[in-house]
Formats: sequence, structure tokens, C-alpha cells
Amino acid sequence: MSDLPKRIRVHEEGPREAFQIESASIAAADKIRLIEALAETGVPQIDCVSYVSPKRVPGMADAEEVARGIRRKPGVRYTGLWLNTKGLERALKLPLDLIGSIKVTASETFCRRNTGMDIEQTFDEQRGFLATYREHGIGVEWGYVMTAFGCNFEGEVPVEQVLRMVERVLVLAADEGVDLKGIYLCDTVGRGTPLTIEQRIGAVRERWPGIRIGLHLHDTRGTGMANAYAALRLGVDQFDTTCAGLGGCPFAGHQGASGNVCTEDLVYMCQEMGIATGIDLRAMAECARMAEHIVGHPLPGKLMHTAF
Amino acid sequence: MSDLPKRIRVHEEGPREAFQIESASIAAADKIRLIEALAETGVPQIDCVSYVSPKRVPGMADAEEVARGIRRKPGVRYTGLWLNTKGLERALKLPLDLIGSIKVTASETFCRRNTGMDIEQTFDEQRGFLATYREHGIGVEWGYVMTAFGCNFEGEVPVEQVLRMVERVLVLAADEGVDLKGIYLCDTVGRGTPLTIEQRIGAVRERWPGIRIGLHLHDTRGTGMANAYAALRLGVDQFDTTCAGLGGCPFAGHQGASGNVCTEDLVYMCQEMGIATGIDLRAMAECARMAEHIVGHPLPGKLMHTAF
Repeated sequence: MSDLPKRIRVHEEGPREAFQIESASIAAADKIRLIEALAETGVPQIDCVSYVSPKRVPGMADAEEVARGIRRKPGVRYTGLWLNTKGLERALKLPLDLIGSIKVTASETFCRRNTGMDIEQTFDEQRGFLATYREHGIGVEWGYVMTAFGCNFEGEVPVEQVLRMVERVLVLAADEGVDLKGIYLCDTVGRGTPLTIEQRIGAVRERWPGIRIGLHLHDTRGTGMANAYAALRLGVDQFDTTCAGLGGCPFAGHQGASGNVCTEDLVYMCQEMGIATGIDLRAMAECARMAEHIVGHPLPGKLMHTAF
Repeated sequence: MSDLPKRIRVHEEGPREAFQIESASIAAADKIRLIEALAETGVPQIDCVSYVSPKRVPGMADAEEVARGIRRKPGVRYTGLWLNTKGLERALKLPLDLIGSIKVTASETFCRRNTGMDIEQTFDEQRGFLATYREHGIGVEWGYVMTAFGCNFEGEVPVEQVLRMVERVLVLAADEGVDLKGIYLCDTVGRGTPLTIEQRIGAVRERWPGIRIGLHLHDTRGTGMANAYAALRLGVDQFDTTCAGLGGCPFAGHQGASGNVCTEDLVYMCQEMGIATGIDLRAMAECARMAEHIVGHPLPGKLMHTAF
């Protein structure tokens, strides 16, 4: 029927996605509790914190406390997100896994609002990052193109612009001697549909046959799971998701942002379709319920609210 | 890329689905207000009430008041649901549109719990209904197979059982001289995945080529929109949905049942993929926000919570 993968790899982004947008009053101990529970589900990688300005993102002011507090489970990678040199410097002092990447944005307007730089400047910055990664022996894994399906300021971002960004990321990686695992197309504000998923994955693969693609999907407009299915049909096997559908982007320019595609809902769908995830569905649904309890309001995940 | 239809027809089931499961304290005037607003969105058919026992479903005790209170907009069909003769007798006295159907259930256990009869008895009852429809000049449109993707009591219902039910519905229709528009496969408890959607639609079409299929989808486990997309790819052009994702099945045997696939989210996805729905997206999102206000708690629709 299609090229459904046999197995997918899921990166759990719930803690970072959530605690940068949720109330700043959530205790570090609760964040740590959730991260430690997530590590027991079989998920291979958990994005725990972001090293951002506590003034802009008060919920992440305790990033250091959280990062230092986690009792690590062997075999699980615990990551954090930095968007600038200052953030990277904080990360270097902490006991989480340091995984380098090349991160760029396809929408000029979103880029300026999110990073305070234009696209050109972010490439210079990424080049600087790569030098630092080399210096510290930090491996570089994926290239990320944010707003690859458009943004709330510019609307749709042309496919050509996405291809240009992918090309520049690949050229930068080659220039710097970095062997990327592949390219993440990020639907940062949840504008994608199965049609644009298919079109953009198709366009990237047509230009770079055999390239590995990951997807970071938000479910802002209800299309998240349909988009995931469209990607699965094309054999995409790498996804960022969040337990309970936690999260949202604090800079996306809309209120009431709903979160990412929900980890346990995606795992359920995959499991029922014979696609392995390595994740214990019941344990993940328990994490989702714990997350809902911690944030203190209903979360969008579906499976967690049923006796499945 | 696939057989996406040019246009789909959506039946809005929000009022009935919602008010049979929401608190019984919602005023009839509010229900009427929502139905009248929905009629302004371009949706061709609105399921307004169900004629069920006020003891079992207290939220529908005011079905008569609601049905009589609606100011009808020409060109819109306002329907109600009866599950037994007593319900039909109530419907006959009211000014809503009377649209006949053949409704059966694929899961024996669910059938007994939902109707108090076994599958065999429901066929006898449906035959009785058809006689009454003839007597009153009520047109019969679709056959419905409920729990066509399984239920919470029996788990998966075998494809063969679904095919048997479709066959018996078609035979009953032929016996009674009824020309059905097609068959609705109902994922009554939201167990389906894109894989079972494709398999079951495929199996029905293989047996009855050219048959028209409609889908009634619940989003209980987060697969609703992915299921809708899987069906759209196969050219399915008839869907039951609910604004704001209202609803849930009071007899489905799980708590926290989430509702149907959300009308405005589906309309958004279709619109962005070039599939016409005839529905004004902004007007439908306004209805969804009105519905949330009326029920007094957050509803699962996504688009309604964004500045799309």
C-alpha cells in the first residue's frame, strides 16, 4: 500500500516544549520526575531544557537545576536546546548529552522574531557553532529547517526557499567536514497538511535522492497526525513528538498554540499498523497523565484519556 | 498522488453528539443558538437531537423543545436520531427533516449494550422501520454499519463480519425496494487507524465495486484526522464530523471519551489541499468557540484555538 517503515525513532520533546511555554511556577522536582519517568518508556532521546533567557522564557530559568537533578538511565540521551552562543556556554557546563546540529529557519520574518537575526546571520552563527563543536568534540547529527511549511507571519514559505535552505545546510556541513544524519523539516507553527508534507518531502528527495528526512510536527490546526501518517507512507522514520501533546512555540505569533504531535497517540497509531517504536505505550500514557497533573490543566493527547 | 475527491459533503453531528453526553443543564435556547449558527456556515445537514430515553440520556430530555425552537434556514437539513420505534414515534411529531436509514452494528456485544437487542433482532427492527418509512413517505438514504472498526468490548471486529453486515444491509435494502446512497462505516469508538481504514474500505469496494462509502469517525485515540486523510486518499467524499470535536459515545464503555473528528479542522485540511467543502471556515470556527462557551469546558478542536 505504501512505504511504511518497519520501525521509527521518536525523540521525546515534551519537557523542553512544555516548560518553556507553561507557567513558570512548576517545580524543578516535578520536571525531573517527568523526565525520569519518560526515560523508563523506552524512548531513546529526551529533550529536557532550553538554555534561553530567563527574562524571555521564565519557565526555563531552572534549566541548570533540572539538568543537574536528573538521575540518568543508561542508554537514554538527555538533550537541551541552545539558540545562541550564550546558551551553548551554559550547556557546556552541564551533565546532559551535547549533540550538535545545524539549525536554520526558512521564513525570514520568523527567523528575526525567534532569533533576533536574519537568515544570513544565522548561517554565520551556525558556522561559529560548528567550530565550537569541533573544539569540544561534540558530534553533529541533524540539520533542521524550521518553518519549512510556512509561518504565521509570512503564511506559506515557498518550496524553493525550503530547498535553498536544505542546500545551504548541506553545503555548510560539507564545507565543515560534518557528516549529517539527514535533514529535519520542522512544521514549527503547525501549518502543514498531508499535501504539503508529500510535496516538500518529495521535492527534497527529488533533489537529493536517498537523503534521510525527519519531521518535527506541531498540531496547531489539527493536521498533526494526518501529517505524520502522510510522512510514514513515504517511509519517514524519524519524528519529534511530545508526550500528552505538550508544548507550543512561545514565539509563533498566536495565542492558544496547541502543542506537538502527541507521542503516545503516534505510538498507538504505529503499533496498530505494525510499525515498531520501541516505546511502551502504557508507560508513555502514564507519563502523559503525570504531565497533565504537573501542568495542572487538560492536555490535548487523546489516548491518555481513554481506557485503551 | 492519490484519488483525493474534488469536493466532500460533511454532515455536522455536533449538537446531537454533544448534548447526549454533556451536562444536562445546558439550556435548550443555547442548543438552538448553536444549531442556528451552524446552519449559517454552509453545512448542508445538521444532526440536532436524539430521541432517546431521558432517563438514560438526561441531556436529550429537551429534544422536543429544541426541535420545535429552531428557526430553519432553507436548504439546510435538520435531522434527529432514533434508535427504536418509540424514538421514531417522537420524531414523527416534530418539524425536523425525517431521513430514513438502515442502522446495524458489527459487534454483537456493543449491539446488545447500545440497543438492548442482538444483531439478529436489530435486522428485524430495521425491517419494521422500513415499513414505517414507506407508510409515512420517508426517504431512506444510507446504510450504517456501527463499530465497523471494532469496539471496546470485543476489540477488533473481523473484516468478514463487517462485510457480512454490509451484505445484509444491501440485501435488506434490495428486498424492501430501497435504493441506498451507499454505506457508512462508523468508527463508533475511535479504534481505527489509517491501515484498517484502507483495509476495510478496500474490502468493501473489492466486493461491491462502485459502492459509495461514508465515514463516521471518532477521535478517541488521536487517529481521527489521519483516518480521514487515509479515506480522502481513497476518494471518500462523505463524512460525519462535529464542530469543535464535540461529542463522544455514552455507551462506548470508556471514560473521558473524546469526540468526533472536528469539523473545522477537517475543513481546514481539505481547503488547504484543494478539496471543496462548501463550508465557511471562519464561521465554523466561530461556532466551535460558541460550543465551547456553551458546554463550559475546553473542547478538543485545534483550529478554533488559533488565529489561523
